[in-house]
Amino acid sequence: MTVCHKAFKVSSDKHKPMFHDVTDQVKEIIANSGVRNGTVTVYSQHTTCSIMIQEESHDTTYDGTKFLLQDLLDMFHNIIPQCSREGQYLHPGPEHIKHAVGNLGEEAVWSLNTDAHLRSCLMGRSETIPIVDGKAELGEFGQIYFIDFDSVRKRDRVVHVQVMGE
Amino acid sequence: MTVCHKAFKVSSDKHKPMFHDVTDQVKEIIANSGVRNGTVTVYSQHTTCSIMIQEESHDTTYDGTKFLLQDLLDMFHNIIPQCSREGQYLHPGPEHIKHAVGNLGEEAVWSLNTDAHLRSCLMGRSETIPIVDGKAELGEFGQIYFIDFDSVRKRDRVVHVQVMGE
Amino acid sequence: MTVCHKAFKVSSDKHKPMFHDVTDQVKEIIANSGVRNGTVTVYSQHTTCSIMIQEESHDTTYDGTKFLLQDLLDMFHNIIPQCSREGQYLHPGPEHIKHAVGNLGEEAVWSLNTDAHLRSCLMGRSETIPIVDGKAELGEFGQIYFIDFDSVRKRDRVVHVQVMGE
Repeated sequence: MTVCHKAFKVSSDKHKPMFHDVTDQVKEIIANSGVRNGTVTVYSQHTTCSIMIQEESHDTTYDGTKFLLQDLLDMFHNIIPQCSREGQYLHPGPEHIKHAVGNLGEEAVWSLNTDAHLRSCLMGRSETIPIVDGKAELGEFGQIYFIDFDSVRKRDRVVHVQVMGE
Repeated sequence: MTVCHKAFKVSSDKHKPMFHDVTDQVKEIIANSGVRNGTVTVYSQHTTCSIMIQEESHDTTYDGTKFLLQDLLDMFHNIIPQCSREGQYLHPGPEHIKHAVGNLGEEAVWSLNTDAHLRSCLMGRSETIPIVDGKAELGEFGQIYFIDFDSVRKRDRVVHVQVMGE
Repeated sequence: MTVCHKAFKVSSDKHKPMFHDVTDQVKEIIANSGVRNGTVTVYSQHTTCSIMIQEESHDTTYDGTKFLLQDLLDMFHNIIPQCSREGQYLHPGPEHIKHAVGNLGEEAVWSLNTDAHLRSCLMGRSETIPIVDGKAELGEFGQIYFIDFDSVRKRDRVVHVQVMGE
Protein backbone atom coordinates (compact mmCIF):
# COMPACT_ATOMS: atom_id res chain seq x y z
CA MET A 1 0.00 0.00 0.00
CA THR A 2 1.16 3.51 -0.86
CA VAL A 3 0.09 6.68 0.94
CA CYS A 4 1.40 9.82 -0.70
CA HIS A 5 0.67 13.30 0.64
CA LYS A 6 1.61 16.49 -1.18
CA ALA A 7 0.63 20.07 -0.48
CA PHE A 8 1.14 23.14 -2.65
CA LYS A 9 0.21 26.79 -2.57
CA VAL A 10 -2.09 28.90 -4.70
CA SER A 11 -2.22 32.66 -4.51
CA SER A 12 -5.58 34.43 -4.13
CA ASP A 13 -4.84 37.95 -5.26
CA LYS A 14 -8.17 39.42 -6.37
CA HIS A 15 -10.91 40.98 -4.30
CA LYS A 16 -13.30 38.39 -5.64
CA PRO A 17 -13.85 34.67 -5.03
CA MET A 18 -11.23 32.80 -7.06
CA PHE A 19 -11.30 29.46 -8.82
CA HIS A 20 -7.83 27.90 -9.05
CA ASP A 21 -7.63 25.12 -11.63
CA VAL A 22 -5.40 22.50 -9.94
CA THR A 23 -6.07 19.61 -12.34
CA ASP A 24 -2.51 19.47 -13.73
CA GLN A 25 -0.92 19.52 -10.27
CA VAL A 26 -3.18 16.71 -9.05
CA LYS A 27 -2.45 14.59 -12.14
CA GLU A 28 1.29 15.07 -11.67
CA ILE A 29 1.11 14.08 -7.98
CA ILE A 30 -0.78 10.90 -8.93
CA ALA A 31 1.78 10.06 -11.64
CA ASN A 32 4.70 10.60 -9.26
CA SER A 33 3.09 8.51 -6.50
CA GLY A 34 3.26 5.36 -8.60
CA VAL A 35 -0.26 4.43 -7.48
CA ARG A 36 -2.13 2.57 -10.24
CA ASN A 37 -5.40 1.86 -8.42
CA GLY A 38 -6.83 3.68 -5.43
CA THR A 39 -8.23 7.09 -4.61
CA VAL A 40 -7.06 10.69 -4.56
CA THR A 41 -8.55 13.10 -2.04
CA VAL A 42 -8.16 16.79 -2.87
CA TYR A 43 -8.80 18.76 0.30
CA SER A 44 -8.92 22.26 1.78
CA GLN A 45 -8.05 22.83 5.42
CA HIS A 46 -9.26 26.43 5.05
CA THR A 47 -12.85 26.89 6.21
CA THR A 48 -13.59 29.50 3.52
CA CYS A 49 -12.40 27.31 0.61
CA SER A 50 -13.78 24.29 -1.24
CA ILE A 51 -12.86 21.68 -3.84
CA MET A 52 -15.08 21.30 -6.90
CA ILE A 53 -15.05 19.25 -10.09
CA GLN A 54 -16.57 21.17 -12.99
CA GLU A 55 -16.61 21.26 -16.77
CA GLU A 56 -14.59 23.66 -18.92
CA SER A 57 -16.99 26.40 -20.09
CA HIS A 58 -14.65 28.21 -22.55
CA ASP A 59 -16.17 31.72 -22.33
CA THR A 60 -15.03 34.16 -19.66
CA THR A 61 -16.40 37.35 -18.12
CA TYR A 62 -14.60 40.70 -18.54
CA ASP A 63 -12.61 39.97 -15.34
CA GLY A 64 -11.52 36.52 -16.55
CA THR A 65 -13.98 34.28 -14.69
CA LYS A 66 -15.29 31.29 -16.65
CA PHE A 67 -19.04 31.63 -17.38
CA LEU A 68 -20.07 28.50 -15.50
CA LEU A 69 -18.09 29.60 -12.45
CA GLN A 70 -19.63 33.08 -12.54
CA ASP A 71 -23.07 31.41 -12.74
CA LEU A 72 -22.20 29.59 -9.52
CA LEU A 73 -21.23 32.88 -7.86
CA ASP A 74 -24.47 34.49 -9.09
CA MET A 75 -26.47 31.67 -7.51
CA PHE A 76 -24.60 32.12 -4.23
CA HIS A 77 -25.21 35.88 -4.44
CA ASN A 78 -28.92 35.10 -4.11
CA ILE A 79 -28.86 32.59 -1.25
CA ILE A 80 -25.71 33.72 0.65
CA PRO A 81 -25.06 37.39 -0.24
CA GLN A 82 -21.57 38.85 0.03
CA CYS A 83 -20.84 40.08 3.56
CA SER A 84 -20.07 43.79 3.42
CA ARG A 85 -20.61 45.05 6.97
CA GLU A 86 -21.04 43.88 10.55
CA GLY A 87 -24.62 43.01 11.50
CA GLN A 88 -25.46 41.55 8.09
CA TYR A 89 -24.86 38.09 9.53
CA LEU A 90 -24.53 37.22 13.24
CA HIS A 91 -20.87 36.24 12.71
CA PRO A 92 -18.42 37.86 13.36
CA GLY A 93 -19.56 38.80 16.87
CA PRO A 94 -17.67 40.90 19.44
CA GLU A 95 -15.85 37.92 21.05
CA HIS A 96 -14.61 36.74 17.65
CA ILE A 97 -13.35 40.23 16.74
CA LYS A 98 -11.63 40.52 20.12
CA HIS A 99 -9.88 37.19 19.44
CA ALA A 100 -8.96 37.98 15.82
CA VAL A 101 -7.67 41.49 16.50
CA GLY A 102 -6.26 40.94 19.98
CA ASN A 103 -4.77 37.45 19.78
CA LEU A 104 -4.08 37.00 16.05
CA GLY A 105 -3.19 40.57 15.11
CA GLU A 106 -5.75 40.62 12.28
CA GLU A 107 -7.71 43.62 11.01
CA ALA A 108 -11.37 43.53 12.05
CA VAL A 109 -12.62 43.79 8.44
CA TRP A 110 -10.85 40.53 7.58
CA SER A 111 -13.51 38.73 9.62
CA LEU A 112 -16.27 39.97 7.27
CA ASN A 113 -16.05 36.68 5.38
CA THR A 114 -19.15 34.99 6.76
CA ASP A 115 -20.45 34.48 3.22
CA ALA A 116 -17.28 32.53 2.39
CA HIS A 117 -17.65 30.27 5.47
CA LEU A 118 -21.26 29.45 4.55
CA ARG A 119 -20.70 28.99 0.83
CA SER A 120 -17.70 26.75 1.34
CA CYS A 121 -19.28 24.42 3.90
CA LEU A 122 -22.24 23.97 1.54
CA MET A 123 -19.86 23.03 -1.31
CA GLY A 124 -17.77 20.78 0.93
CA ARG A 125 -14.10 20.69 1.80
CA SER A 126 -12.92 17.86 -0.45
CA GLU A 127 -13.50 15.63 -3.43
CA THR A 128 -12.42 11.97 -3.52
CA ILE A 129 -11.79 10.61 -7.02
CA PRO A 130 -11.12 6.98 -8.02
CA ILE A 131 -7.72 6.26 -9.59
CA VAL A 132 -7.94 3.52 -12.23
CA ASP A 133 -4.91 2.33 -14.23
CA GLY A 134 -2.88 5.26 -12.99
CA LYS A 135 -5.35 7.98 -13.86
CA ALA A 136 -7.97 9.97 -11.95
CA GLU A 137 -11.45 9.24 -13.35
CA LEU A 138 -12.30 12.74 -14.54
CA GLY A 139 -13.93 11.89 -17.84
CA GLU A 140 -13.24 14.00 -20.91
CA PHE A 141 -14.19 17.36 -19.46
CA GLY A 142 -13.68 17.25 -15.68
CA GLN A 143 -11.44 19.86 -14.09
CA ILE A 144 -10.55 20.12 -10.41
CA TYR A 145 -10.92 23.57 -8.87
CA PHE A 146 -9.72 24.87 -5.55
CA ILE A 147 -12.26 27.61 -4.75
CA ASP A 148 -11.28 30.49 -2.47
CA PHE A 149 -14.59 32.12 -1.52
CA ASP A 150 -12.86 34.61 0.78
CA SER A 151 -12.40 37.91 -1.04
CA VAL A 152 -11.56 40.25 1.85
CA ARG A 153 -7.77 40.02 1.45
CA LYS A 154 -4.98 38.67 -0.71
CA ARG A 155 -3.19 35.59 0.61
CA ASP A 156 -1.65 32.22 -0.11
CA ARG A 157 -3.71 29.08 0.36
CA VAL A 158 -2.67 25.45 0.77
CA VAL A 159 -4.11 22.63 -1.39
CA HIS A 160 -3.75 19.13 0.08
CA VAL A 161 -3.60 16.05 -2.13
CA GLN A 162 -3.68 12.56 -0.58
CA VAL A 163 -3.13 9.58 -2.87
CA MET A 164 -3.86 6.11 -1.46
CA GLY A 165 -3.70 2.75 -3.19
CA GLU A 166 -1.25 0.37 -4.78
CA MET B 1 -4.85 -4.42 0.79
CA THR B 2 -7.55 -4.75 -1.85
CA VAL B 3 -8.53 -2.06 -4.37
CA CYS B 4 -11.53 -3.01 -6.47
CA HIS B 5 -12.96 -0.75 -9.14
CA LYS B 6 -16.18 -1.46 -10.99
CA ALA B 7 -18.20 0.75 -13.30
CA PHE B 8 -21.68 0.19 -14.67
CA LYS B 9 -24.20 2.08 -16.77
CA VAL B 10 -27.57 3.57 -15.99
CA SER B 11 -29.91 4.88 -18.65
CA SER B 12 -31.43 8.36 -18.30
CA ASP B 13 -34.41 8.26 -20.60
CA LYS B 14 -36.81 10.90 -19.30
CA HIS B 15 -36.85 14.62 -19.98
CA LYS B 16 -36.58 15.21 -16.25
CA PRO B 17 -33.80 14.87 -13.67
CA MET B 18 -33.58 11.17 -12.76
CA PHE B 19 -32.70 9.39 -9.52
CA HIS B 20 -31.18 5.97 -10.16
CA ASP B 21 -31.24 3.73 -7.07
CA VAL B 22 -27.86 1.93 -7.24
CA THR B 23 -27.86 0.47 -3.71
CA ASP B 24 -28.10 -3.16 -4.80
CA GLN B 25 -25.31 -2.82 -7.37
CA VAL B 26 -23.01 -1.19 -4.79
CA LYS B 27 -23.75 -3.89 -2.21
CA GLU B 28 -23.01 -6.62 -4.75
CA ILE B 29 -19.69 -5.01 -5.74
CA ILE B 30 -18.67 -4.83 -2.08
CA ALA B 31 -19.62 -8.49 -1.51
CA ASN B 32 -17.68 -9.63 -4.59
CA SER B 33 -14.60 -7.57 -3.63
CA GLY B 34 -14.04 -9.65 -0.49
CA VAL B 35 -13.29 -6.46 1.49
CA ARG B 36 -14.45 -6.78 5.09
CA ASN B 37 -13.27 -3.41 6.43
CA GLY B 38 -12.55 -0.26 4.47
CA THR B 39 -14.45 2.28 2.43
CA VAL B 40 -16.52 2.40 -0.73
CA THR B 41 -16.54 5.55 -2.85
CA VAL B 42 -19.47 5.91 -5.24
CA TYR B 43 -18.56 8.53 -7.81
CA SER B 44 -19.78 10.38 -10.91
CA GLN B 45 -17.32 11.55 -13.55
CA HIS B 46 -20.18 13.44 -15.24
CA THR B 47 -20.30 17.10 -14.20
CA THR B 48 -24.11 17.20 -14.33
CA CYS B 49 -24.59 14.19 -12.03
CA SER B 50 -24.24 13.55 -8.27
CA ILE B 51 -24.27 10.78 -5.70
CA MET B 52 -26.68 11.04 -2.77
CA ILE B 53 -27.69 8.89 0.19
CA GLN B 54 -31.34 9.33 1.05
CA GLU B 55 -34.20 7.59 2.85
CA GLU B 56 -36.95 5.59 1.15
CA SER B 57 -40.03 7.81 1.07
CA HIS B 58 -42.58 5.25 -0.23
CA ASP B 59 -45.00 7.65 -1.98
CA THR B 60 -44.44 8.70 -5.59
CA THR B 61 -45.65 11.50 -7.85
CA TYR B 62 -47.79 10.79 -10.92
CA ASP B 63 -44.59 10.49 -13.01
CA GLY B 64 -43.01 7.97 -10.61
CA THR B 65 -40.65 10.25 -8.65
CA LYS B 66 -40.39 9.50 -4.92
CA PHE B 67 -41.87 12.35 -2.85
CA LEU B 68 -38.62 13.18 -1.00
CA LEU B 69 -36.73 13.33 -4.30
CA GLN B 70 -39.37 15.58 -5.87
CA ASP B 71 -39.08 17.84 -2.79
CA LEU B 72 -35.37 18.13 -3.55
CA LEU B 73 -36.13 19.09 -7.16
CA ASP B 74 -38.69 21.66 -5.97
CA MET B 75 -36.07 23.23 -3.71
CA PHE B 76 -33.60 23.39 -6.61
CA HIS B 77 -36.32 24.90 -8.80
CA ASN B 78 -36.28 27.90 -6.46
CA ILE B 79 -32.53 28.47 -6.14
CA ILE B 80 -31.28 27.10 -9.49
CA PRO B 81 -34.21 27.23 -11.98
CA GLN B 82 -34.30 24.91 -14.96
CA CYS B 83 -32.38 26.32 -17.91
CA SER B 84 -34.75 26.72 -20.85
CA ARG B 85 -33.09 29.25 -23.15
CA GLU B 86 -29.77 30.95 -23.87
CA GLY B 87 -29.18 34.12 -21.83
CA GLN B 88 -30.89 32.76 -18.70
CA TYR B 89 -27.46 31.94 -17.30
CA LEU B 90 -24.12 33.16 -18.66
CA HIS B 91 -23.18 29.60 -19.64
CA PRO B 92 -23.29 28.36 -22.39
CA GLY B 93 -21.56 31.26 -24.14
CA PRO B 94 -20.66 31.53 -27.85
CA GLU B 95 -17.22 29.92 -27.50
CA HIS B 96 -18.69 26.92 -25.69
CA ILE B 97 -21.40 26.48 -28.34
CA LYS B 98 -18.78 26.76 -31.09
CA HIS B 99 -16.76 24.00 -29.36
CA ALA B 100 -19.77 21.74 -28.64
CA VAL B 101 -21.32 22.03 -32.09
CA GLY B 102 -18.14 22.38 -34.14
CA ASN B 103 -15.74 20.02 -32.38
CA LEU B 104 -18.04 17.54 -30.64
CA GLY B 105 -20.89 17.40 -33.13
CA GLU B 106 -23.48 18.16 -30.45
CA GLU B 107 -26.73 20.06 -30.89
CA ALA B 108 -26.62 23.57 -29.42
CA VAL B 109 -29.67 22.96 -27.19
CA TRP B 110 -27.82 20.12 -25.43
CA SER B 111 -25.67 22.77 -23.75
CA LEU B 112 -28.71 24.30 -22.04
CA ASN B 113 -27.92 22.23 -18.94
CA THR B 114 -26.39 24.97 -16.80
CA ASP B 115 -28.89 24.21 -14.05
CA ALA B 116 -27.62 20.61 -13.95
CA HIS B 117 -23.96 21.73 -13.66
CA LEU B 118 -24.80 24.03 -10.74
CA ARG B 119 -27.11 21.65 -8.91
CA SER B 120 -24.71 18.74 -9.20
CA CYS B 121 -21.61 20.60 -7.97
CA LEU B 122 -23.61 21.79 -4.96
CA MET B 123 -24.62 18.18 -4.17
CA GLY B 124 -21.11 16.86 -4.80
CA ARG B 125 -19.72 14.21 -7.10
CA SER B 126 -19.31 11.33 -4.64
CA GLU B 127 -20.15 9.72 -1.33
CA THR B 128 -17.63 7.71 0.70
CA ILE B 129 -19.17 5.12 3.02
CA PRO B 130 -17.41 3.02 5.67
CA ILE B 131 -17.45 -0.75 5.15
CA VAL B 132 -17.64 -2.65 8.46
CA ASP B 133 -17.74 -6.45 8.65
CA GLY B 134 -18.34 -6.68 4.91
CA LYS B 135 -21.25 -4.24 4.78
CA ALA B 136 -21.65 -0.58 3.83
CA GLU B 137 -22.87 1.41 6.86
CA LEU B 138 -26.19 2.58 5.44
CA GLY B 139 -28.36 2.10 8.51
CA GLU B 140 -31.85 0.69 8.15
CA PHE B 141 -33.15 3.17 5.61
CA GLY B 142 -30.22 4.50 3.57
CA GLN B 143 -30.31 4.17 -0.19
CA ILE B 144 -27.65 5.27 -2.64
CA TYR B 145 -28.82 7.33 -5.59
CA PHE B 146 -27.01 8.31 -8.76
CA ILE B 147 -28.70 11.59 -9.72
CA ASP B 148 -28.72 12.72 -13.34
CA PHE B 149 -29.71 16.40 -13.20
CA ASP B 150 -29.33 16.79 -16.96
CA SER B 151 -32.72 16.51 -18.64
CA VAL B 152 -31.97 17.88 -22.10
CA ARG B 153 -31.39 14.50 -23.74
CA LYS B 154 -31.56 10.76 -23.23
CA ARG B 155 -28.26 9.00 -22.66
CA ASP B 156 -26.30 6.38 -20.78
CA ARG B 157 -24.27 7.38 -17.73
CA VAL B 158 -21.42 5.64 -15.93
CA VAL B 159 -21.44 4.98 -12.17
CA HIS B 160 -18.01 4.36 -10.62
CA VAL B 161 -17.60 2.28 -7.46
CA GLN B 162 -14.20 2.06 -5.76
CA VAL B 163 -13.82 -0.37 -2.84
CA MET B 164 -10.66 -0.11 -0.71
CA GLY B 165 -9.70 -2.05 2.37
CA GLU B 166 -8.83 -5.54 3.50
CA MET C 1 -2.32 -1.32 6.05
CA THR C 2 -4.57 -0.47 8.99
CA VAL C 3 -8.34 -0.06 8.86
CA CYS C 4 -9.83 1.14 12.12
CA HIS C 5 -13.54 1.71 12.59
CA LYS C 6 -15.05 3.30 15.68
CA ALA C 7 -18.57 4.50 16.34
CA PHE C 8 -19.86 6.58 19.22
CA LYS C 9 -23.10 8.21 20.26
CA VAL C 10 -24.15 11.82 20.60
CA SER C 11 -27.40 12.89 22.21
CA SER C 12 -29.71 15.33 20.41
CA ASP C 13 -31.90 16.66 23.17
CA LYS C 14 -33.15 20.04 21.96
CA HIS C 15 -36.07 20.84 19.70
CA LYS C 16 -33.66 22.58 17.34
CA PRO C 17 -31.01 21.42 14.87
CA MET C 18 -27.90 20.58 16.91
CA PHE C 19 -24.20 20.89 16.11
CA HIS C 20 -22.14 18.31 18.02
CA ASP C 21 -18.43 19.15 18.11
CA VAL C 22 -16.73 15.76 17.66
CA THR C 23 -13.19 17.01 16.97
CA ASP C 24 -11.67 15.60 20.16
CA GLN C 25 -13.24 12.18 19.68
CA VAL C 26 -11.98 11.97 16.08
CA LYS C 27 -8.47 13.04 17.11
CA GLU C 28 -8.39 10.39 19.85
CA ILE C 29 -9.55 7.65 17.47
CA ILE C 30 -6.78 8.62 15.02
CA ALA C 31 -4.17 8.59 17.80
CA ASN C 32 -5.31 5.18 19.06
CA SER C 33 -5.35 3.70 15.53
CA GLY C 34 -1.60 4.11 15.17
CA VAL C 35 -2.09 5.38 11.60
CA ARG C 36 0.54 7.98 10.69
CA ASN C 37 -0.45 8.62 7.05
CA GLY C 38 -3.81 8.02 5.43
CA THR C 39 -7.34 9.36 5.64
CA VAL C 40 -10.11 9.61 8.19
CA THR C 41 -13.72 9.54 7.03
CA VAL C 42 -16.27 10.93 9.49
CA TYR C 43 -19.68 9.73 8.42
CA SER C 44 -23.39 9.80 9.28
CA GLN C 45 -25.62 6.85 8.43
CA HIS C 46 -28.62 8.97 9.43
CA THR C 47 -30.29 10.65 6.45
CA THR C 48 -31.19 13.76 8.44
CA CYS C 49 -27.62 14.38 9.69
CA SER C 50 -24.39 15.70 8.14
CA ILE C 51 -20.70 16.13 8.84
CA MET C 52 -19.18 19.61 8.52
CA ILE C 53 -15.79 21.21 9.11
CA GLN C 54 -16.14 24.79 10.29
CA GLU C 55 -14.24 27.50 12.15
CA GLU C 56 -14.71 28.37 15.82
CA SER C 57 -16.81 31.56 15.93
CA HIS C 58 -16.57 32.28 19.69
CA ASP C 59 -19.89 34.16 20.15
CA THR C 60 -23.09 32.28 20.88
CA THR C 61 -26.83 33.02 20.64
CA TYR C 62 -29.03 33.10 23.76
CA ASP C 63 -29.73 29.38 23.31
CA GLY C 64 -26.03 28.48 23.06
CA THR C 65 -25.63 28.13 19.28
CA LYS C 66 -22.36 29.49 17.85
CA PHE C 67 -22.96 32.55 15.61
CA LEU C 68 -21.56 30.98 12.44
CA LEU C 69 -23.70 27.88 12.95
CA GLN C 70 -26.83 29.98 13.52
CA ASP C 71 -26.00 31.88 10.31
CA LEU C 72 -26.02 28.53 8.51
CA LEU C 73 -29.45 27.70 9.98
CA ASP C 74 -30.74 31.15 8.97
CA MET C 75 -29.61 30.53 5.40
CA PHE C 76 -31.37 27.16 5.39
CA HIS C 77 -34.49 28.79 6.84
CA ASN C 78 -34.72 30.76 3.59
CA ILE C 79 -34.14 27.99 1.06
CA ILE C 80 -35.48 24.93 2.98
CA PRO C 81 -37.94 26.22 5.63
CA GLN C 82 -38.61 24.17 8.76
CA CYS C 83 -41.34 21.59 8.18
CA SER C 84 -44.21 22.27 10.59
CA ARG C 85 -47.24 20.53 9.06
CA GLU C 86 -48.25 17.94 6.46
CA GLY C 87 -48.70 19.38 2.95
CA GLN C 88 -45.83 21.88 3.29
CA TYR C 89 -43.61 19.46 1.38
CA LEU C 90 -44.78 16.41 -0.58
CA HIS C 91 -42.99 14.11 1.89
CA PRO C 92 -44.21 12.52 4.15
CA GLY C 93 -47.07 11.09 2.06
CA PRO C 94 -49.80 8.67 3.19
CA GLU C 95 -47.82 5.51 2.34
CA HIS C 96 -44.82 6.71 4.33
CA ILE C 97 -46.99 7.56 7.34
CA LYS C 98 -48.69 4.16 7.12
CA HIS C 99 -45.24 2.51 7.15
CA ALA C 100 -43.82 4.68 9.94
CA VAL C 101 -46.83 4.39 12.24
CA GLY C 102 -47.98 0.89 11.31
CA ASN C 103 -44.67 -0.97 10.85
CA LEU C 104 -42.22 1.04 12.94
CA GLY C 105 -44.51 2.18 15.76
CA GLU C 106 -43.53 5.81 15.28
CA GLU C 107 -45.69 8.87 15.89
CA ALA C 108 -46.87 10.52 12.65
CA VAL C 109 -45.43 13.93 13.61
CA TRP C 110 -41.91 12.39 13.77
CA SER C 111 -42.02 12.19 9.97
CA LEU C 112 -42.34 15.98 9.68
CA ASN C 113 -38.58 16.19 9.18
CA THR C 114 -38.50 16.76 5.43
CA ASP C 115 -36.46 19.93 5.95
CA ALA C 116 -33.80 17.85 7.74
CA HIS C 117 -33.61 15.31 4.89
CA LEU C 118 -33.14 18.05 2.30
CA ARG C 119 -30.69 20.14 4.31
CA SER C 120 -28.53 17.17 5.20
CA CYS C 121 -28.26 15.74 1.67
CA LEU C 122 -27.22 19.17 0.44
CA MET C 123 -24.48 19.32 3.10
CA GLY C 124 -23.41 15.72 2.49
CA ARG C 125 -23.10 12.69 4.72
CA SER C 126 -19.34 12.68 5.32
CA GLU C 127 -16.02 14.48 5.29
CA THR C 128 -12.75 12.75 4.38
CA ILE C 129 -9.65 14.39 5.88
CA PRO C 130 -6.00 13.58 5.11
CA ILE C 131 -3.92 12.25 8.03
CA VAL C 132 -0.31 13.44 7.84
CA ASP C 133 2.31 12.50 10.45
CA GLY C 134 -0.39 11.14 12.74
CA LYS C 135 -2.64 14.20 12.65
CA ALA C 136 -5.80 15.16 10.75
CA GLU C 137 -5.11 18.19 8.53
CA LEU C 138 -7.55 20.60 10.18
CA GLY C 139 -5.39 23.72 10.17
CA GLU C 140 -5.40 26.04 13.16
CA PHE C 141 -9.13 26.64 13.36
CA GLY C 142 -10.94 23.63 11.87
CA GLN C 143 -13.50 21.81 13.98
CA ILE C 144 -15.50 18.75 12.98
CA TYR C 145 -19.23 18.93 13.60
CA PHE C 146 -21.84 16.22 13.49
CA ILE C 147 -25.02 18.12 12.55
CA ASP C 148 -28.40 16.74 13.54
CA PHE C 149 -30.89 18.71 11.42
CA ASP C 150 -33.83 16.70 12.77
CA SER C 151 -35.52 18.64 15.56
CA VAL C 152 -38.81 16.77 15.89
CA ARG C 153 -37.71 14.50 18.74
CA LYS C 154 -34.92 13.78 21.20
CA ARG C 155 -32.73 10.80 20.41
CA ASP C 156 -29.26 9.30 20.29
CA ARG C 157 -27.29 9.41 17.06
CA VAL C 158 -24.30 7.37 15.90
CA VAL C 159 -21.11 8.97 14.55
CA HIS C 160 -18.92 6.69 12.39
CA VAL C 161 -15.16 7.24 12.11
CA GLN C 162 -13.13 5.17 9.64
CA VAL C 163 -9.33 5.54 9.72
CA MET C 164 -7.34 4.03 6.85
CA GLY C 165 -3.62 4.14 6.19
CA GLU C 166 -0.36 2.94 7.63
